Amino acid sequence: MKQLENLIEEIVHRVNTNLREFRIDVGPYARKAVPIKQFLKFYAFYGLTDYHPIDFHFGHSSLAGSYFLGKCHIDDSVLYKTDVRGDELKRAGATFKSGELSLKLRRNERIVVRNAYLIKTLVHCYSHDPEFAEEFPIENTISAPYANIHGAPMRGCFLGPFATVDLTTVHDCEIGAFSYLQMGELSHTQVEPGTIWLNNGYTFHFLYQFPAEALREYIDFDRDRGVAGVLFDFVESHKPHFQKVFDVVHLERPDRVHRRAALNRYAVLRGRCNIAENVLVAQRAYLENADMGKGANAQENCFIVNARLEGYNVTAHGAKIIHAVLKNKVFVGFNAFVRSTGASPLAIGAGTIIMPHTIIDVAEPLDIPPDHLVWGLIRNAADLRENSLRLDRLSEIKSSFRQGRLHFQGSGKAFVAAFRHRIESILETNGAYFDGRLVKGHAQSDQNIAFNIIQPFTTGGRKGLYPTIDIHEKVR
Amino acid sequence: MKQLENLIEEIVHRVNTNLREFRIDVGPYARKAVPIKQFLKFYAFYGLTDYHPIDFHFGHSSLAGSYFLGKCHIDDSVLYKTDVRGDELKRAGATFKSGELSLKLRRNERIVVRNAYLIKTLVHCYSHDPEFAEEFPIENTISAPYANIHGAPMRGCFLGPFATVDLTTVHDCEIGAFSYLQMGELSHTQVEPGTIWLNNGYTFHFLYQFPAEALREYIDFDRDRGVAGVLFDFVESHKPHFQKVFDVVHLERPDRVHRRAALNRYAVLRGRCNIAENVLVAQRAYLENADMGKGANAQENCFIVNARLEGYNVTAHGAKIIHAVLKNKVFVGFNAFVRSTGASPLAIGAGTIIMPHTIIDVAEPLDIPPDHLVWGLIRNAADLRENSLRLDRLSEIKSSFRQGRLHFQGSGKAFVAAFRHRIESILETNGAYFDGRLVKGHAQSDQNIAFNIIQPFTTGGRKGLYPTIDIHEKVR
Repeated sequence: MKQLENLIEEIVHRVNTNLREFRIDVGPYARKAVPIKQFLKFYAFYGLTDYHPIDFHFGHSSLAGSYFLGKCHIDDSVLYKTDVRGDELKRAGATFKSGELSLKLRRNERIVVRNAYLIKTLVHCYSHDPEFAEEFPIENTISAPYANIHGAPMRGCFLGPFATVDLTTVHDCEIGAFSYLQMGELSHTQVEPGTIWLNNGYTFHFLYQFPAEALREYIDFDRDRGVAGVLFDFVESHKPHFQKVFDVVHLERPDRVHRRAALNRYAVLRGRCNIAENVLVAQRAYLENADMGKGANAQENCFIVNARLEGYNVTAHGAKIIHAVLKNKVFVGFNAFVRSTGASPLAIGAGTIIMPHTIIDVAEPLDIPPDHLVWGLIRNAADLRENSLRLDRLSEIKSSFRQGRLHFQGSGKAFVAAFRHRIESILETNGAYFDGRLVKGHAQSDQNIAFNIIQPFTTGGRKGLYPTIDIHEKVR
Repeated sequence: MKQLENLIEEIVHRVNTNLREFRIDVGPYARKAVPIKQFLKFYAFYGLTDYHPIDFHFGHSSLAGSYFLGKCHIDDSVLYKTDVRGDELKRAGATFKSGELSLKLRRNERIVVRNAYLIKTLVHCYSHDPEFAEEFPIENTISAPYANIHGAPMRGCFLGPFATVDLTTVHDCEIGAFSYLQMGELSHTQVEPGTIWLNNGYTFHFLYQFPAEALREYIDFDRDRGVAGVLFDFVESHKPHFQKVFDVVHLERPDRVHRRAALNRYAVLRGRCNIAENVLVAQRAYLENADMGKGANAQENCFIVNARLEGYNVTAHGAKIIHAVLKNKVFVGFNAFVRSTGASPLAIGAGTIIMPHTIIDVAEPLDIPPDHLVWGLIRNAADLRENSLRLDRLSEIKSSFRQGRLHFQGSGKAFVAAFRHRIESILETNGAYFDGRLVKGHAQSDQNIAFNIIQPFTTGGRKGLYPTIDIHEKVR
């Protein structure tokens, strides 16, 4: 497995070079994160459909458990269970809008993941950076598990576990564990763990800092010791249930799944689940005794356990909902952890927005009112009062306010409008509003993905690596 | 599935054109052989190892259930469950010997399967034709199920069910059901069903013709009605047991398989099987209560049921052994059907050669003596007397002899020597003589194949077809 080990060293060296100002050595982490023999135990796969333009190239790669739905390009990249989802790549001729900017695409957009490492990261390729209109590059980036990269060209970064980089272009940064970033660009910056930071230039600025000690109980990360904490344990403990979906080539469609719902064949359903019309259950989502109302979604790496989602609910990448009832159009952001014990009911009112990376972990009954914004760490009713605000109140804010550990600046109205717009656009893109003819989305089109399974070499110098594979549109 | 249908029509038209002198229309058969929707139900796969040079190209293809281990090229070819086994392709620089001829190969040999149909055919690419030193073409050929093509460039042929073309280049022929051909070249010829025909130019000539009426009980074929008969029913009835190996990505290695044995992951083992050292159990072989002694093999599409093979036994592609005990070095040729009822024992003595396409089907005890050649249709002791000869007696024949429906001409000595040489070379190639260091063969190297699974498009005009895929040696 010499060539694979050399490749990892090469990427470590590059990331260290790019992060040299922080005097960081990512080597000890990168070498230990996955015992080298594990690379032989897993296969990689890629999804094909008839409507995503493809031009796949996997060159001298180690890539396990990854899906690429659109035009693609990978080089010497270790990806190990990282999912790169390219089903929203832009097409040639499309108009790329970014604020007041508007660009016409000359070519179909492609993913580029050149010399990059990434391990167990979810990359969703809806690029928001007009400087990279036709490409979605990542070059070299090392992640701790369960990081999300959402619309972000990268280069030489280190992402802590459960970190999310959203609508953000990041260069040469270290992003702390469980941090959430949403801003235009960030370079040469070290972001502390548990930083929730949204910065829309002159319009609004949202900054919440998790209390360091309390956060460590949920996510504790050290580059030498690795990842620990409640969130990590929760996810790891569910891993065995995924075994079967990866062992089997064709799966039977379970009962109680509406014919107009998209249940990804790499999702897990256990117990008694109901999947209504226009529901999207994405790859590596885990549902157990989950009742998904019309147009609700469970995005990649979500967990919905003993829960009922009334309808048109967005459960963003990596969000976890355990023992809860969510009314209509509740939004639960990336990597949010929403959990009650079964004994004490947790209810969330209609239209409420649970910010990305919110931790709600209650051992007492809690009723979260409708149309509120909720953020931070909430373990009881007092925490909820400190870390929530009625959306109409927030809309009235014109300059700034502080509440607990939150500091908000700018237009509350713009902030609420931006969120509501995004929720609507997610629902639409995912096919929640499909009427049988129009507004088709992922919930409809993702029913027809053909997944191809590729395996690494089992012997020789390339052991653990994959052959060079090119897949093209038909040539006739 | 329009494009797939068009492709089938195109191939039918070409094969009909090439067979026009026989006034044959293969269309009714080709259109009906596989209901078009079946193409969506199966996946194709290909094997990769570190030691077979690869340069795969699958272009605008429908190919399900196929394995390609070496350098390759496929174009608009429907292959459906046809296995193309390219693990004996010759390398650049190798010397290709054919009789007294000797050629040096300039390039790695490649498979070419251009516009060809083929359905459920086994193609084993050890080419014997010096006119095609670096290529193994098939161009366009339609087969009924369970045909074998072994070392044969082809073009515009129609092969009946269970027909075998062995060490033979065939152009524009129709080969009848269950016929076996071994000769240098054959073109523009119609071969009757049940013709067993070996022709080594001036050296020997072996011709046996099955009684037509009796053969129909075992294999009955009509281009309109399709395939029927005991052999076909036997194979079809075992198909459900293959389901699991195709459903699952990784299979556990069963007990009682020697660590120096190669059990292909697409083989089926049922009941209590013992697999000794240096045994090769190839893809789609079926073993049930089979005891495989040291160095024995079960090649592709074999069935070994309630049987004991003492050691160094060759069970060639598609041979079936049911309720029998085989002593050391018994050779059972391609598609032979050797069956007793469990009540009456069938034993075959050491060193005996069961000719390809022999049918031994007995309801009474039968003891086949050692060192004999056995051929034709045998249903009792009288048939055996008519259809067998001691190998030392055969070796004495210098001009010709007739026995029952067999007509032999030429040197019996050369015939026996050629067979014995081939048996030894098969054993060696398959690794039967591996001593832990030297004479490595398939039984050793085939333990490390990585199988990659590819699926057809599920929607759109290309429904049922595969994308264009290129797989290369690493490029660095």
